Amino acid sequence: MSTPTGRRRGRPPRAAAQDGAPGTRERILDAARAEFARRGYDLAAIRAIARAADVNPALVHHYFGPKEALFAAAVGAAVEPVSRRIAGEPLAEVTELGERFTRLFLGVWESQDTREPLLAVLRSALSNETAAAIFRRHVTDLLLARLVETLPGPDAALRAELAATQLVGVALARYVLRLEPLASTDVETLARRLTPAVQLHLTGRPDAPAGA
Amino acid sequence: MSTPTGRRRGRPPRAAAQDGAPGTRERILDAARAEFARRGYDLAAIRAIARAADVNPALVHHYFGPKEALFAAAVGAAVEPVSRRIAGEPLAEVTELGERFTRLFLGVWESQDTREPLLAVLRSALSNETAAAIFRRHVTDLLLARLVETLPGPDAALRAELAATQLVGVALARYVLRLEPLASTDVETLARRLTPAVQLHLTGRPDAPAGA
Repeated sequence: MSTPTGRRRGRPPRAAAQDGAPGTRERILDAARAEFARRGYDLAAIRAIARAADVNPALVHHYFGPKEALFAAAVGAAVEPVSRRIAGEPLAEVTELGERFTRLFLGVWESQDTREPLLAVLRSALSNETAAAIFRRHVTDLLLARLVETLPGPDAALRAELAATQLVGVALARYVLRLEPLASTDVETLARRLTPAVQLHLTGRPDAPAGA
Repeated sequence: MSTPTGRRRGRPPRAAAQDGAPGTRERILDAARAEFARRGYDLAAIRAIARAADVNPALVHHYFGPKEALFAAAVGAAVEPVSRRIAGEPLAEVTELGERFTRLFLGVWESQDTREPLLAVLRSALSNETAAAIFRRHVTDLLLARLVETLPGPDAALRAELAATQLVGVALARYVLRLEPLASTDVETLARRLTPAVQLHLTGRPDAPAGA
C-alpha cells in the first residue's frame, strides 16, 4: 500500500532503524523468518538476521529476547492472519464445519502472503524440538482451540487434529513438494474432495446427518 | 546383530573403508542422511559426510556422484523398505484398500528404523526444490504407482495422493511436531480413525459399499 501522507513507513534509513522507528520490528521479523526458513532453527544466526534487517544484533535482542522468543514471535506473526480469519468466521452449523474449515485453510495456503510465513516456521518446527514445541503451542492455542470448542461429543481435540493433518498434508504436497496431479488440481475441485474427509473427522460422518 | 563368524561387518578400519570394503557404501549413506537431516539439502556438505563416514571425500563422489545423486540414493534407501512391504502385500479387495494402506503406512512410521530415514529425506525435500523433485519422483514411482494401478475409476492418481497426504500429515504431527492428543493416541485407535478417511479418498466411500 502506498503512503502518500508522508508518514514514515517501509524501510527507514539506518539511523532511524536503530532507535525503534516504525517498521523496524516488522523488518527484523521478516529477516528472522527468511533465516529460519533458509537455515532451519538450529543454524539460524541472530547476527545474520540483524544484518539482513540492517540493524545492530543488540537491537534484535532488545526487541525480541533470545532465539526462542524471536522464533515464537515469527510463529505468532505467521499464525495471526489465520487466527484473525477464524475469529471473523460466523459460527457455523456442525454440518458445515468441514466445508468452512477446508475452505478457510485452502484460502490461507493459496495466498503466497499468508503461505510463506507459515511455511517458514513449519520448516523450522519440523527440524528442531524447541521450534516444534513453540509451533505446536501456537497451533493448539490459536488455531485449533475455537474449532475444538465448536465440536460436539468426546475426542474433539483428536478429531480437530486429524482434520488439520489432512489439510496440512495436502498443503505440503501441493505447495512444497508439488506432487502431481495434486499441485495443478484447481482449488475448487480440491475443496470438494477434501470437505467430506474433513467433515468425517470432525463429526464422524462425511456428509450432513440424515434429517439435518 | 553380532557377527561371531568374524566376517568383516559394521565399521571397518579406515584403510578398509577407503578401498570399498563391505559396509562403506551403507556408512556413507547413513552419514549423508544424518547430514541432510541436520543441515538441510542446501547446506549439506560432502566434506562433512565424508568425515562422518570416515572416508575420503573423493570416495563419496566415486560411489554416488554429485550431491543430487547422493540425495537420490538416500531417498532410495529410505523408501526401499516401504516399497518392499508394498510389493509383499497380497492384492487387496477394493473394500480393504483403506485399511491396508493405513496400517502399512502406520507400521512404517511406528518403527524408528524405517521412520528416521524417511524423515531425514522428507525434511530436505521440504526445504529445497531439487530435493523435492527427487523425492516426489521416488514417491510417485515407488510408493504410489502400485496403489494407483489397483484403484478403479478416474482420478486414481489424485485419490491416491489425497489418501497419502492424510497419512503424511498425521505422521508429521504425531512423530515430529508431537501434537497432543494425537501423539499419545494408541496406534490401533489411530488406524481405526484414519481408515474411513483414507477409504473415502480411495473409493469415494468411507466404508465398504453396501452389498459388497
